[in-house]
Amino acid sequence: MKGIIQDVKGRKAVYGDDWSNAFAAGPRIFAPIAYIFFASALPVIAFGEQLSRETDGSLSTVETLASTALCGIIHSLIGGQPLLVVGVAEPTVIMYSYIYTFAISSDAVGKKLYLAWAGWVCVWTALMLILLAVFDACNILNKFTRLAGETFGMLIAVLFFQQAVKGMVGEFSPTEGEDEKSPDHSFQWLYVNGLLGVIFTFGVLITALKSRKARSWEYGTGWFRSIIADYGVPLVVMAWAALSLTVPRQVPEGIPRRLQTPLPWDPASMGHWTVFMIRLFVCLFHQDMAKVPPGFILAAIIPAVMVAGLYFFDHSVASQMAQQKEFNIKKPSAYHYDILILGITTLICGLIGLPPCNGVLPQSPMHTKSLSVLNGQPSAAKELKNLKEAVMSEGSKEGGESSFDPEKIDAYLPVRVIEQRFSNFMQSLLIGVSLMAMPVIKKIPTSVLWGYFAYMAIDSLPGNQFWERIVLLLITPTRRHKILERPHASFVETVPFKEIAKFTIFQLIYFLICFGVTWIPVAGILFPLPFFFLISIREKILPKFFQPNHLKELDGVEYEEIEGDPMRTRSMSLRRTNSRDAGFEEEAEVFDELTTGRGELRLRSASVSQERSNQVYPGNFLDG
Amino acid sequence: MKGIIQDVKGRKAVYGDDWSNAFAAGPRIFAPIAYIFFASALPVIAFGEQLSRETDGSLSTVETLASTALCGIIHSLIGGQPLLVVGVAEPTVIMYSYIYTFAISSDAVGKKLYLAWAGWVCVWTALMLILLAVFDACNILNKFTRLAGETFGMLIAVLFFQQAVKGMVGEFSPTEGEDEKSPDHSFQWLYVNGLLGVIFTFGVLITALKSRKARSWEYGTGWFRSIIADYGVPLVVMAWAALSLTVPRQVPEGIPRRLQTPLPWDPASMGHWTVFMIRLFVCLFHQDMAKVPPGFILAAIIPAVMVAGLYFFDHSVASQMAQQKEFNIKKPSAYHYDILILGITTLICGLIGLPPCNGVLPQSPMHTKSLSVLNGQPSAAKELKNLKEAVMSEGSKEGGESSFDPEKIDAYLPVRVIEQRFSNFMQSLLIGVSLMAMPVIKKIPTSVLWGYFAYMAIDSLPGNQFWERIVLLLITPTRRHKILERPHASFVETVPFKEIAKFTIFQLIYFLICFGVTWIPVAGILFPLPFFFLISIREKILPKFFQPNHLKELDGVEYEEIEGDPMRTRSMSLRRTNSRDAGFEEEAEVFDELTTGRGELRLRSASVSQERSNQVYPGNFLDG
Repeated sequence: MKGIIQDVKGRKAVYGDDWSNAFAAGPRIFAPIAYIFFASALPVIAFGEQLSRETDGSLSTVETLASTALCGIIHSLIGGQPLLVVGVAEPTVIMYSYIYTFAISSDAVGKKLYLAWAGWVCVWTALMLILLAVFDACNILNKFTRLAGETFGMLIAVLFFQQAVKGMVGEFSPTEGEDEKSPDHSFQWLYVNGLLGVIFTFGVLITALKSRKARSWEYGTGWFRSIIADYGVPLVVMAWAALSLTVPRQVPEGIPRRLQTPLPWDPASMGHWTVFMIRLFVCLFHQDMAKVPPGFILAAIIPAVMVAGLYFFDHSVASQMAQQKEFNIKKPSAYHYDILILGITTLICGLIGLPPCNGVLPQSPMHTKSLSVLNGQPSAAKELKNLKEAVMSEGSKEGGESSFDPEKIDAYLPVRVIEQRFSNFMQSLLIGVSLMAMPVIKKIPTSVLWGYFAYMAIDSLPGNQFWERIVLLLITPTRRHKILERPHASFVETVPFKEIAKFTIFQLIYFLICFGVTWIPVAGILFPLPFFFLISIREKILPKFFQPNHLKELDGVEYEEIEGDPMRTRSMSLRRTNSRDAGFEEEAEVFDELTTGRGELRLRSASVSQERSNQVYPGNFLDG
Repeated sequence: MKGIIQDVKGRKAVYGDDWSNAFAAGPRIFAPIAYIFFASALPVIAFGEQLSRETDGSLSTVETLASTALCGIIHSLIGGQPLLVVGVAEPTVIMYSYIYTFAISSDAVGKKLYLAWAGWVCVWTALMLILLAVFDACNILNKFTRLAGETFGMLIAVLFFQQAVKGMVGEFSPTEGEDEKSPDHSFQWLYVNGLLGVIFTFGVLITALKSRKARSWEYGTGWFRSIIADYGVPLVVMAWAALSLTVPRQVPEGIPRRLQTPLPWDPASMGHWTVFMIRLFVCLFHQDMAKVPPGFILAAIIPAVMVAGLYFFDHSVASQMAQQKEFNIKKPSAYHYDILILGITTLICGLIGLPPCNGVLPQSPMHTKSLSVLNGQPSAAKELKNLKEAVMSEGSKEGGESSFDPEKIDAYLPVRVIEQRFSNFMQSLLIGVSLMAMPVIKKIPTSVLWGYFAYMAIDSLPGNQFWERIVLLLITPTRRHKILERPHASFVETVPFKEIAKFTIFQLIYFLICFGVTWIPVAGILFPLPFFFLISIREKILPKFFQPNHLKELDGVEYEEIEGDPMRTRSMSLRRTNSRDAGFEEEAEVFDELTTGRGELRLRSASVSQERSNQVYPGNFLDG
């Protein structure tokens, strides 16, 4: 309980700023809004498609979008950590599909009472979440280190990538539950669809990755380039979707395969839609729920346990990753309180028959990242100018860049995040609006989604030290020094390569186990469990195999990782030297560099007061 | 005549080395052989396809390959400049198609005497070429400056690129002169073919460009990386061709569209083949030629004039570009003598009924380039080590790299070309052998060829200052300084931007005119004409619009261009500093850098004795 109280106090103090900061940031705030809206909406749409296939249309994109919008708005208004992005995620889909198969297997429930029974699962889940919040369960996060966090982040990335590949390959085979007569079933058209799928998937992936680098392009005006860098990914998606409309007329309807969501006002979904509206606005209690036989109401506890455990973990980790040390977050966290809110939103969704939401990865860190790029904002540019002079004077004063102390850089380098609720609120609102824009959304080919999934997966890797260590292992020995020429975490210099390899291989094997677990049909959604074990493995077993100082470097509290790396600052000051007075579009580029990955950001989070790191208010906070 | 004599003397002196040097280079010589074999064979195959379509199969890939092999072997054995690569090129194809249309239009000649009449065209052409050689016409090359050369190079690149685009788009439409029943004519399969075309074209282009950079990859062993860098492009072509065989069985034969060359031993081409063999080995005189009515024999002079002019120009420019100043060629040129040889080979081809060959672009400079990369050859590595120390000592001695004088670098930097006849001989031989390998070649999808064409076009641009200046115009002003951080020709620093722009825009307009000429149906093959005008424009008109010193920088004799560019050497010495003792695979990388473009090479050709530049022995050489 104390955790919650403390969280509320902490956030209440800054609630005003949470709004004013946004408006202070000016129109630039709309770049992250657009960015995160797509990052949040597209997967929700894809999962909606999947859900409607698995539940014979009982639930569809309409519900997933509605739920995401609803929970998002609630969370952005009264939630604790506004950087955390919520949405209907894969696990929810898996769980709801499972509940469906179970429901229709018994006459007592059947398709008719499916949502009602799922409602009960939500009720139980909500209850457990609230209890977890009240009993300060989030304190466990204090023990949740980079090792676990990054392995989890990697797992999510791989799952997204897996989905992208599956999806693209799937373009070559007919969609299940489709009428045999559809052109989709003639081999020829199926093959055409597959080939278009390959083109769109790779097209989106490649162009999206390129567009993120736009700010450092040499062509086009700075204005043009920052537009691309800010809105490039959304534009890429729209461009390819538009291109997909140019297929010759002889190609039958539905090639390339597009989203099959029924329009909210189609007879098909009118059902969902109106029912859902009535539920939402008229009666907050879903009458059918009373009709579920008591036995099943109790049985609902079993899936509820899974969902609760999953949500608790997912939500907290997403929140933690959205406010990592190196993002240099200034405002307090609110883990306990957010779990409480999660419980409440889950309850509401259950009652009105929507699939519930939880904190999502990698969108949450993406959100923070996008907010930490102050594209060529005058103030930022000025500060960077100072940095430049500072670095150089330092350099000359102490004779030679190599002697320059990176600690000093932080005083000058303003990597800050616009911490506010507006971007989260707006993107949730947009998701709600997009329900109206369904006719447009339906024009998006599924293959564009797969390309986008692949992009999300790849874009989430840089800065993940687990990933960087794997890369390090792959680099041929004679080239390893090159790492030192680039931004890099200090362990590269302080820990012997053999140790790094040992640690990474252990982590890789563990990761593969976790990945394996996701393949187990239903228990698959228990994939967070191994991460809880990882916490104690880290605590009890690893110290037996690694020297404490090595372990500290590889998986310590983050502030232990900022020593060393003169190269980083050298290459940096060098850049500034060459870049003359190129106006602050140039400077903005540096920001990109600093914010492309958590790894690079880390370097500048040194001087920040340490209390903030991994901050969770322990239950006994007020006692001691 | 004196030109020829001089050429022969010059080359005779080094003829022994022309072979011994190759064997001295060891097995590494096979990398350029493989590289240039593909660069030479694939276009010849594509042109053969085109020719057989336009001449209703009178000539086909069998003939173009045979001719390329034959002329190549002759040229590599007794030709003057062994770096020059000969082959059946686009203009020849255009001309032969035109001759065909003309021949069949008159009963006196008709399809039967087509080759005979074409033979007469060759006889006249040969005669003119021999006269041009004897009267030292090549002296005009002395006036042929970078302006004309690079505009021409650009034109060739654009023509190749145009062919690539046309080809890829063409994959969506049926091939002319094909039976209506072929699946190629159902829209669906045509569309499938087109989509596969897009995938293969872009696939080949992207992977080929990437593979050229392999040496600087960070993954894989050095051994693996240099294999990729050396043989990557051929491997890429084979890999995609292999991939194209994996299309599902339901896809009908001929999708994706593949080369339609008849096998040399197919009844279809048995005709060509045997007839050609008989012509080649039995009677050196093509009896039919006697049957051509005298009037037509005379009329053959008209096309002959065009062909002669074209060949003379094409052959000489290709040769000149293959031995540019910055390649640091040591052995003498042989422009006059090579035109004589060209005359002879043209005569032979005409007599035995083959389309003749001439020096080809961009393959000839590609050939030299590929020979100038001494991949991590110990000696080279050692020399580079010295360079490194030298540069650095210089740096420290004179206090600061910026004060380092690039002139000094040349003494250390060994960019040399293995000047020999073996690589040219081998690749010609391989082309001959590939006639036997037709069944394999037929497996290559045409779209792979288009991708390769695009690759050739793009790969020929770096180092072309015309191209670099166009890019410079496109770069946004605030970024122009970045050019200075990269290797760059000195004019960037010495000529005011406004002047560079003026000059480049003039050149661009002139280029567009030349490009426009190629679109004129038949006269199109006269496209070299404007380049002759360009010579006098450069001489008479340009000086009126530009200051002499600017003009000297932008389009002077090459040795006037090597001043300045401290940046280049700085970045270089810097690289060496960081690169520790990374073994000489590292060093080889530098070579790549030096040889990726003529522009970069230019920097190190300073200290070379100047006589060699643009060296053509003037007729009055011995008199004066």
